[in-house]
Amino acid sequence: MADPRFYSAKGPFTVRALAEIAGAALSSDSDPDRVIRDVAPLATAGPECLGFLDNPRYATQFAVTRAGACLVRPESSAGAPRGMCLLFTGTPYKAYAKVAQAFYPREAPVPGVAPSATVDPGAKIGEGTAIGAGAVVGPGAEIGRRCRIGANAVIGPGVTLGDDCVIGASTSLHYCLVGRRVRMLAGVRIGEDGFGFAPDPDVPVDIPQLGRVIIEDDVEIGANTTIDRGAGPDTVIGAGTRIDNLVQIGHNVTLGRGCIVIAQAGISGSTKLEDYAIVAAQGGVAGHLTVGKGARVAAKSGVMRDVPPGVSVGGIPAVGIRQWFRQVAILQRLARSRDQ
Amino acid sequence: MADPRFYSAKGPFTVRALAEIAGAALSSDSDPDRVIRDVAPLATAGPECLGFLDNPRYATQFAVTRAGACLVRPESSAGAPRGMCLLFTGTPYKAYAKVAQAFYPREAPVPGVAPSATVDPGAKIGEGTAIGAGAVVGPGAEIGRRCRIGANAVIGPGVTLGDDCVIGASTSLHYCLVGRRVRMLAGVRIGEDGFGFAPDPDVPVDIPQLGRVIIEDDVEIGANTTIDRGAGPDTVIGAGTRIDNLVQIGHNVTLGRGCIVIAQAGISGSTKLEDYAIVAAQGGVAGHLTVGKGARVAAKSGVMRDVPPGVSVGGIPAVGIRQWFRQVAILQRLARSRDQ
Amino acid sequence: MADPRFYSAKGPFTVRALAEIAGAALSSDSDPDRVIRDVAPLATAGPECLGFLDNPRYATQFAVTRAGACLVRPESSAGAPRGMCLLFTGTPYKAYAKVAQAFYPREAPVPGVAPSATVDPGAKIGEGTAIGAGAVVGPGAEIGRRCRIGANAVIGPGVTLGDDCVIGASTSLHYCLVGRRVRMLAGVRIGEDGFGFAPDPDVPVDIPQLGRVIIEDDVEIGANTTIDRGAGPDTVIGAGTRIDNLVQIGHNVTLGRGCIVIAQAGISGSTKLEDYAIVAAQGGVAGHLTVGKGARVAAKSGVMRDVPPGVSVGGIPAVGIRQWFRQVAILQRLARSRDQ
Repeated sequence: MADPRFYSAKGPFTVRALAEIAGAALSSDSDPDRVIRDVAPLATAGPECLGFLDNPRYATQFAVTRAGACLVRPESSAGAPRGMCLLFTGTPYKAYAKVAQAFYPREAPVPGVAPSATVDPGAKIGEGTAIGAGAVVGPGAEIGRRCRIGANAVIGPGVTLGDDCVIGASTSLHYCLVGRRVRMLAGVRIGEDGFGFAPDPDVPVDIPQLGRVIIEDDVEIGANTTIDRGAGPDTVIGAGTRIDNLVQIGHNVTLGRGCIVIAQAGISGSTKLEDYAIVAAQGGVAGHLTVGKGARVAAKSGVMRDVPPGVSVGGIPAVGIRQWFRQVAILQRLARSRDQ
Repeated sequence: MADPRFYSAKGPFTVRALAEIAGAALSSDSDPDRVIRDVAPLATAGPECLGFLDNPRYATQFAVTRAGACLVRPESSAGAPRGMCLLFTGTPYKAYAKVAQAFYPREAPVPGVAPSATVDPGAKIGEGTAIGAGAVVGPGAEIGRRCRIGANAVIGPGVTLGDDCVIGASTSLHYCLVGRRVRMLAGVRIGEDGFGFAPDPDVPVDIPQLGRVIIEDDVEIGANTTIDRGAGPDTVIGAGTRIDNLVQIGHNVTLGRGCIVIAQAGISGSTKLEDYAIVAAQGGVAGHLTVGKGARVAAKSGVMRDVPPGVSVGGIPAVGIRQWFRQVAILQRLARSRDQ
Repeated sequence: MADPRFYSAKGPFTVRALAEIAGAALSSDSDPDRVIRDVAPLATAGPECLGFLDNPRYATQFAVTRAGACLVRPESSAGAPRGMCLLFTGTPYKAYAKVAQAFYPREAPVPGVAPSATVDPGAKIGEGTAIGAGAVVGPGAEIGRRCRIGANAVIGPGVTLGDDCVIGASTSLHYCLVGRRVRMLAGVRIGEDGFGFAPDPDVPVDIPQLGRVIIEDDVEIGANTTIDRGAGPDTVIGAGTRIDNLVQIGHNVTLGRGCIVIAQAGISGSTKLEDYAIVAAQGGVAGHLTVGKGARVAAKSGVMRDVPPGVSVGGIPAVGIRQWFRQVAILQRLARSRDQ
């Protein structure tokens, strides 16, 4: 059970209600009125908990779990413990996410401006929004309804946020327009100067960075990640994209819808990720490239040329993933066969 | 045109004035009194905009641009659209930077200490300096003239900053002496403890870190970058050096003049980069090494021995850049030729 | 000598007192009453300074140093300058650390809550603790005795810290339980959401993250490092572990006692490092793996399978360190022998 110092579960819910929330179908021998009080992994779930089976690797846990109810694909449900309620779905993990959200919804903000916050008189704050202690909101900023601005966060002049955004502690936003339901964790840096200058042996001559960061709806951005504003064009983060911690996004980058950029990856200036492209942890993409729709860049890889849609790449410099596997295999074989 | 919520252009300027700012020579058939109101890329520039042609790749855009004026090398100016003013220079990109700065100069700080800032009575604040909301300035700190200290930034005890520095939101400075015209973006961490301890199976024994960070004039430091103070010697960042976002600089490191360290690169303790050395994105240099004057470390490379002046290296471990290209080529060829 | 703007040395101490602090034995011809006023590297030490000789590489410095006293292994002490006091120990570096701590102990916090701090009435603050300017302490938080909470730091609701913790400027803690003598440098992010969601072409469905971060005694965490809270299980950092700057620790990760994770390394979700494991700079470990007790991961390596206890690995993907050296060597040889 989640630590009550930090979390409190809603509910309880009947199995019938949870099936509806999950978009799942109850098996005929399940008791729709059974009461469920929490979610839990199969290994630790008790009779009043709901679990899920998605990865077949956990089938043995499924067979012996004490969970009172389980989200499962119909074809994986053989061997279920007697008496357990079965909620059939084709996507057990996603269904579980919805049930877990029902038990642990995001807390609504407690509206109001903390006494120690500094809100410019020229800023607009929407109804139901909470501005945390020590937060700073600059002139001309517009914050939507039901937003939560974390402690010591900084919302710069002219920045706009849509409704239902959550901004983490000590995060700073400048030169950006942010959509609805966007979540940024703590320490994020949006809209700082891009890395642009003309070299000079004396002092480099900076190029004024005159663009913005446009963040579409439903984006999430991890802790201490940095997204530079555009140099003239904008830096754009497409709807539903997920960015992990400590990621670097250079100026003029465009990420499409539903992209995934995992921890400590970096996307260099003016590069474009098309919809649903994925860059895994510590991966890097050089500047002025296109990573096609649904393409995948393996962890720690370095992409130095365009990646066509749907293609997976790996290595430094990155090549097709199978080619990379062969490179790894042949090098390992050569090294093993060598006299020592 | 830049978003007026965030930027306002100075000007307009005549082409004659801009040529002077850029240090460029007007072509004989250009109208020196033509009025220019903004800068823009050639592709989107209108008749009242100035653009530039540096990379010959953009020659086709040059041929059809609607820009009213263009900075260009004399030898690249054939095929210019009829009526466009030509400003001849050997360094169009740098000249463009100067013109762009004329249209979009850095805003002067609005002097004063925000009511929510905490400035120790023993700190000295220079004339014309602005201390942002929630900023904290410790005892004995000395801040020069015309500086701008961002919201929620922290200037630790005894820290000194020269004139005309800009410190970003939520950045913290400790144990450091900072020159003039230094810019740090948001979330920078200067002067934290170096990673120094004597291992022990019980509890490691920390080595007190007794040095400082010395940052010379005209340095710029990117968002969320960390620069540890020296263990006994100092950590030194030379004049005019440019450091990008999320870079790690270990204790006792010395960077010379005009070095460039790109996003997510790391320089380990006691290593020295001589003047104008470059470490590209996600590159790493091991400790106690010297990277010679003007040497270049390719993106994602791992340097494990000294790099002579002027030499370019790549790979993990890094080797001469041509040797690295050959390694890549031979491995790709071996992998392709292998039966599958 | 350390800059008196930032550091002030305690003492002086007699050589006898320092030998006791260091757990070292004085050589028979040393004067136990000699007065020492500071620590210094052998190269710069004067007659009132104590130095140390650990790495035999510095034997020539030892032979000519002007230091008044030196920590040294008995077997390395031949050739000592005449008149220098010798303090014999098997672990000179660790002994030096203890002496340096005696000269430069951590400053005790000046108890009290800064006027600009925001402490929830429901929080508990231990005796002798200092809460810095602009810091925010949430409801239900419990902070132990003699802690120092940095300027603009944020201690979230329900968070607990043991005695003698030091929290850096602008650091934020949420959903965590922290032991005694834990030090976090500036900009650390503890307890943010793990990167967990069920993909969906429309909007990914987030998995509520319901665990905590448990940080045991004597841990140190570097600047701008991020440690996500668990998804259901906890993220755990074992006693005495040292984490450097800009490190990413994913949800559900467990680090054992005395682990070392160096700058910009990343540990993916649900991975376990057993006691004393080391991950060097910019290294990465994929998710759901175990790195055995005392195992070592070389800088920039990418670990994609379990590492047995005591084993050193390197490369991408990581292999045994000797195998990796052979891979490097054979590739370099092949590339050199190739016609050009």
